[in-house]
Amino acid sequence: MLKRYFPILEWGAQYSRATLSADMLAAVIVTIMLIPQSLAYALLAGLPPVVGLYASILPLVAYAIFGTSRTLAVGPVAVVSLMTASAAGAVAAQGSAEYLQAAITLAALSGVMLAVLGLLRLGFLANLLSHPVIAGFITASGILIATSQLRHVLGIAGGGENWPDMLTSLAQNITTVNWPTLVIGGLAVAFLFWVRKGFAPLLQKTGMSEKTAVMAAKAGPVIAVALTIVAVIVLGLADKGVKLVGAVPQGMPPFSVPSMNLGLISQLWVPALLISIIGFVESVSVAQTLAAKRRQRIAPDQELVGLGAANIAAAFSGGYPVTGGFARSVVNFDAGAQTPAAGAYTAVGIALASLFLTPLLFNLPIATLAATIIVAVLSLVDVKTPVRLWRYSKGDFAAHVATIGMTLLAGVEMGVISGVCVGLLLYLWKASRPHAAIVGRVPETEHFRNVERHKVLTLPHLLSIRIDESLTYLNARWLEEYVLERVAEKPELRHVILMCSAVNAIDATGLESLEAINHRLGDGGIGLHLSEVKGPVMDRLKDTHFLEELNGKVFLSQDSAWSQLASDDGSPAEPKDQYLARGMI
Amino acid sequence: MLKRYFPILEWGAQYSRATLSADMLAAVIVTIMLIPQSLAYALLAGLPPVVGLYASILPLVAYAIFGTSRTLAVGPVAVVSLMTASAAGAVAAQGSAEYLQAAITLAALSGVMLAVLGLLRLGFLANLLSHPVIAGFITASGILIATSQLRHVLGIAGGGENWPDMLTSLAQNITTVNWPTLVIGGLAVAFLFWVRKGFAPLLQKTGMSEKTAVMAAKAGPVIAVALTIVAVIVLGLADKGVKLVGAVPQGMPPFSVPSMNLGLISQLWVPALLISIIGFVESVSVAQTLAAKRRQRIAPDQELVGLGAANIAAAFSGGYPVTGGFARSVVNFDAGAQTPAAGAYTAVGIALASLFLTPLLFNLPIATLAATIIVAVLSLVDVKTPVRLWRYSKGDFAAHVATIGMTLLAGVEMGVISGVCVGLLLYLWKASRPHAAIVGRVPETEHFRNVERHKVLTLPHLLSIRIDESLTYLNARWLEEYVLERVAEKPELRHVILMCSAVNAIDATGLESLEAINHRLGDGGIGLHLSEVKGPVMDRLKDTHFLEELNGKVFLSQDSAWSQLASDDGSPAEPKDQYLARGMI
Repeated sequence: MLKRYFPILEWGAQYSRATLSADMLAAVIVTIMLIPQSLAYALLAGLPPVVGLYASILPLVAYAIFGTSRTLAVGPVAVVSLMTASAAGAVAAQGSAEYLQAAITLAALSGVMLAVLGLLRLGFLANLLSHPVIAGFITASGILIATSQLRHVLGIAGGGENWPDMLTSLAQNITTVNWPTLVIGGLAVAFLFWVRKGFAPLLQKTGMSEKTAVMAAKAGPVIAVALTIVAVIVLGLADKGVKLVGAVPQGMPPFSVPSMNLGLISQLWVPALLISIIGFVESVSVAQTLAAKRRQRIAPDQELVGLGAANIAAAFSGGYPVTGGFARSVVNFDAGAQTPAAGAYTAVGIALASLFLTPLLFNLPIATLAATIIVAVLSLVDVKTPVRLWRYSKGDFAAHVATIGMTLLAGVEMGVISGVCVGLLLYLWKASRPHAAIVGRVPETEHFRNVERHKVLTLPHLLSIRIDESLTYLNARWLEEYVLERVAEKPELRHVILMCSAVNAIDATGLESLEAINHRLGDGGIGLHLSEVKGPVMDRLKDTHFLEELNGKVFLSQDSAWSQLASDDGSPAEPKDQYLARGMI
Repeated sequence: MLKRYFPILEWGAQYSRATLSADMLAAVIVTIMLIPQSLAYALLAGLPPVVGLYASILPLVAYAIFGTSRTLAVGPVAVVSLMTASAAGAVAAQGSAEYLQAAITLAALSGVMLAVLGLLRLGFLANLLSHPVIAGFITASGILIATSQLRHVLGIAGGGENWPDMLTSLAQNITTVNWPTLVIGGLAVAFLFWVRKGFAPLLQKTGMSEKTAVMAAKAGPVIAVALTIVAVIVLGLADKGVKLVGAVPQGMPPFSVPSMNLGLISQLWVPALLISIIGFVESVSVAQTLAAKRRQRIAPDQELVGLGAANIAAAFSGGYPVTGGFARSVVNFDAGAQTPAAGAYTAVGIALASLFLTPLLFNLPIATLAATIIVAVLSLVDVKTPVRLWRYSKGDFAAHVATIGMTLLAGVEMGVISGVCVGLLLYLWKASRPHAAIVGRVPETEHFRNVERHKVLTLPHLLSIRIDESLTYLNARWLEEYVLERVAEKPELRHVILMCSAVNAIDATGLESLEAINHRLGDGGIGLHLSEVKGPVMDRLKDTHFLEELNGKVFLSQDSAWSQLASDDGSPAEPKDQYLARGMI
């Protein structure tokens, strides 16, 4: 029980020397990758770069204690950073103390929400985000993020929360381009794109193994950072208008306290919920993919607790919302991390960096960080998915496009909310008109098939309807209409058989609709029969008065229903009495 | 086509003399019943009594043109009147011109919404109101309405939008009871209760036929109205503090115009939507029940248009939101109405009443109207449903109780919204963890059954999972977890067969989950196979790359899958190549 809530007790008990060295190696590699990334994502979130380092220390330790994935690497990620910027920007100006306070409070709210969802086992709510909605959101976020960073590469002022505003702002300020910044930024972008594709093959030519080469190529951003720092110093670019990171406070993360201001909380809880759910969905997908590769399992509800703890830790150590990142987790996995301890060692690495390396970052151009963001997020933009969705499912395509459109035009929050609403409406619409078929007997067999797809026997006084769905309140009204319309088309009808082989459950509304159909058919002198009712469904029906009131019988098989009712095409009798006499169920 | 939007063209063409006399008779009976009811419900809505008469004239004509039910009687009803009082009371004080304007605007908004929902064929949205939610709402509304009218019977001041407030207000004012009012009101309540039960049998004893007696008993409220007017005049009760209806304007409905004030509309659109949906659900249930009795059909989407037209008519003729009422529709049906023309004739009857009878109503005690409301709505309170729901389905019970509780404590709007949310959350929760079973072969047959319910054969290297639900984004994550957990339990596993006999559809998220399962199983050297895939599902899968990437085969039947894979328990090979060699689908 304790192990369920503290997975560290599970893997910690078996911790060996071999695991230690594997975890340490992975931690070194992830640390090198994480330093420029943390600085860059903090910039994207509109926060001082050092906040990115703070968000990569205690949260990793907290996740190592509570998380269930052996290899997930937690920290600042692009999409959540953008959402943080959007939410904090709505309550305070970037650069103000209130803005930082809002980011810290977002982390706290998100942490509490994640932990509560996990403890209440409400992880299923994340299901409301379908793949098309997530894919649309991530594509649109990638476009938004890349656009938002363009100004840093151009060395101009600007802003905007949505795409039209960002583009307008860029267009207005384009005349004030700072050329040295653009050269540095442009070269960094070009270098980083090349590193992604061409660096690993080059390293391999020097005799490095493929795996090591791919791993070494992940240090590309670190090289870009080092080279541009040197360039700034050598060429004296600080005097030529190139914006630099400047003084970064040296030392361990400060102790911070989230705001208890109810007004602020009421403004931030919706974005915090969205950050939580988006972060959870991203994180759990990565964790599941990696776990499956080693035939391990993660516990999604405990993952909520782990991510919740990480965010609460972020809130109390000057950080901002974090989650499991895709790229860094893959690096952690490939570098051979065996347990969440690798995350804790990474935290030590980042802590050492924030103690000793920060003075070196003084001359780092903002444009370099912007370049690392642009190159990282452009890989998020996925142009194949809309094409694939259009071909596979128009409804999913609609949800995808609605999410992209609303995210670009109205920002991240409206984007996610619209996607969820469109997806849910389409789902409910489909659920409210499930598949059903009029079936007839395949000649000389006991099988019954759809009359529209097969050559089957039917009888004018007997209507067999197969319902391919559980009867719930969403389709109850449809059921009434469907049955009564089919009945209205057949004036000679005496019996209706509902074939329930695919009915897994009948809720109270479904039951009332069956009762209504029974009474209405009874008023018209038509018997209602059920066939192939599943065991658990029948058990529940037996507890009600429905079977007593049924103007007909319940048959074990559709075949026996057909056989017994086929001959009963006589004069309009009272079906109920007739079946009562025969011994109704 | 034209007939679809103007059903009057359909039945009007066949209108005969016999139909005319039947409709006229029904109209006379419904008019007599409707006069006191319209006055009382306007009172309940916090409006001058004459507004109830106005709402029973033009809306009936509009419904006769656009509605599809032959016998639905439209006009003010109790629940919608209460909702009107709640919504209008939130923006203006009862008795003010703004309050009446708000009621008229509600009718207009509700009319437009209904008509738009109908034209867009969005009637399925009404499905979100499950029977337990509607039943809970109606029970709670009955309690609220009866409580709200108690003060009129007691002759005291008071108010309140929810039950605790109403009870507090009653308790505070109870010392100021007006005894003559209480006597009149109490006697009226007692008389009306007796009329419901004892009047028809008494009339039958005088030799009247049962049907006529029941019909005549519906005139009970008219008798109560007449008797109490006489009592007021004879006993001079006006001077003893008994509140009277007073001067009712004589004449036809005035031309009124709904407000175009955007501020007002933004306050009223949510209640208007709720009024529309509740009104539609109530109305369409009544209409369907009555139509089925005569083997007629109604068109729900056109019903939305009909009710929309009725409400727009109400808005332009000084009325307030209307819908199809249960009691009056049954009376109309029983009195032999054949076509919607009966409603138009009723409108003429009410118009004559508002022209000539209103002076007679001067001495009508408010307490009499309150008594007719109390007796009418107490029949709405249903104590059996919660018991039944508790026994049948705990989830439905929860939605029912949440609706009752929230309606009583927080008012009608929050009640409906909470009920819908609780119902939807429970539905989504269930949809996110559908039924699935590990199946094995029933010995010496081709049948496969749940291993937990039947004695069946299984093999250690072969896992057959039957999924009893379509694969959608709501259960995609569950599917991944379910399959991978089952796989993790079986170390010797080489093949997984998903038996898809109950999978009616696979959406894009479901497909991605299948792909993820396929890749993860492939990473572990396990083959994924599908069996009994339905034709339409297979057609769509063929358009994707899924079948090419599948580490296994698609089998027509579970039996052939079992037969072919049962023997393949050899050394860990590469399943994909193996099946490619065998000629994969």
